[in-house]
Amino acid sequence: MTGSPRVRMSPESRREQLLDLGVTLLATRSLEELSIDLLAEEAGISRGLLYHYFGNKHDFHEAVVRRAADDLIATTAPPAEGEPLERLLVSVTAYVDYVEANYEGYLSLVKGAAGGNDAIREIYEEARAALTDRVFREDAQGTIVPDTPAARMMVRAWSAMAEDLVLTWVRRPEGVTRDQLLEGLSSSLPALVEILH
Amino acid sequence: MTGSPRVRMSPESRREQLLDLGVTLLATRSLEELSIDLLAEEAGISRGLLYHYFGNKHDFHEAVVRRAADDLIATTAPPAEGEPLERLLVSVTAYVDYVEANYEGYLSLVKGAAGGNDAIREIYEEARAALTDRVFREDAQGTIVPDTPAARMMVRAWSAMAEDLVLTWVRRPEGVTRDQLLEGLSSSLPALVEILH
Repeated sequence: MTGSPRVRMSPESRREQLLDLGVTLLATRSLEELSIDLLAEEAGISRGLLYHYFGNKHDFHEAVVRRAADDLIATTAPPAEGEPLERLLVSVTAYVDYVEANYEGYLSLVKGAAGGNDAIREIYEEARAALTDRVFREDAQGTIVPDTPAARMMVRAWSAMAEDLVLTWVRRPEGVTRDQLLEGLSSSLPALVEILH
Repeated sequence: MTGSPRVRMSPESRREQLLDLGVTLLATRSLEELSIDLLAEEAGISRGLLYHYFGNKHDFHEAVVRRAADDLIATTAPPAEGEPLERLLVSVTAYVDYVEANYEGYLSLVKGAAGGNDAIREIYEEARAALTDRVFREDAQGTIVPDTPAARMMVRAWSAMAEDLVLTWVRRPEGVTRDQLLEGLSSSLPALVEILH
């Protein structure tokens, strides 16, 4: 744990700090590999105390994944100003950065390596819905895509494509440059929506 | 079981027939809901005999999913003749038909509802690779897409998009006609590959 041990933290702050550590550990590990034992070791506190904060392994995993999903949503928020397509590009760039920095944990979440844990699946679905709904909130004038049920369906499908493409690219770029990837991700959104209309 | 009970079947044929029944039952059920008990009841034979054919529940599920994946690959094979884009449209049409007819089982496979079963996940990945590799085999002249590592990456991502789009559309078409969907699925493939090049 960072910070001076002499500073007495509230239980809430302590829990938050432990969650941050859990998210950091998840970046380079699958959820299966993220154990209470590992967190205890890295935090330098007892397993017993961790169970006090998180109840059991499932609750711990759920809390860490929820925090990771919140981080993803916050970090990919587009800037307040700019043209819609430019802001989408900024958002997509942040997404690629996030996947690169958190590859293992993100992959395990996407692949459902959570072992059929419904709570984890639900957090994943919520995060995905938040990310795709944002496209319409941020592009309220419909500059990139019109807000229709068909477009919403396609934006969701586009996000499945983007997720697969970025996960593959991070592992093996295959000659595709970062700029090509980013340009491809952002320009494919209006192109796909157009195709379905 | 269909056929006359007086015809003595070989154990192989019997197992094949049971697998076919398992695939039929999976069409309208998740993998979790497909139990040995249910198969025994539908087949009119004892659970003991089924364990003789399939070992345990996991082996049974694995065999059924493998058969279902083989069926999907066979049923979506494009015709031998015709223009590449036309043949792609035929293949995509068969895919939509398949997902409509086998919605529950296919969804449970995609969603990893198999509860983190690695064997099931592997069959799923193999089937997906077979379906995307076929694009390049069937379009050997590169009429729709050139055979480059980048294009292969995008075809894989396109298939993730197609899977999500079709699963959503079957549940709620949102005003998108079948023809629009099919046209969108096939024309988006060259469009996406073009975008990344």
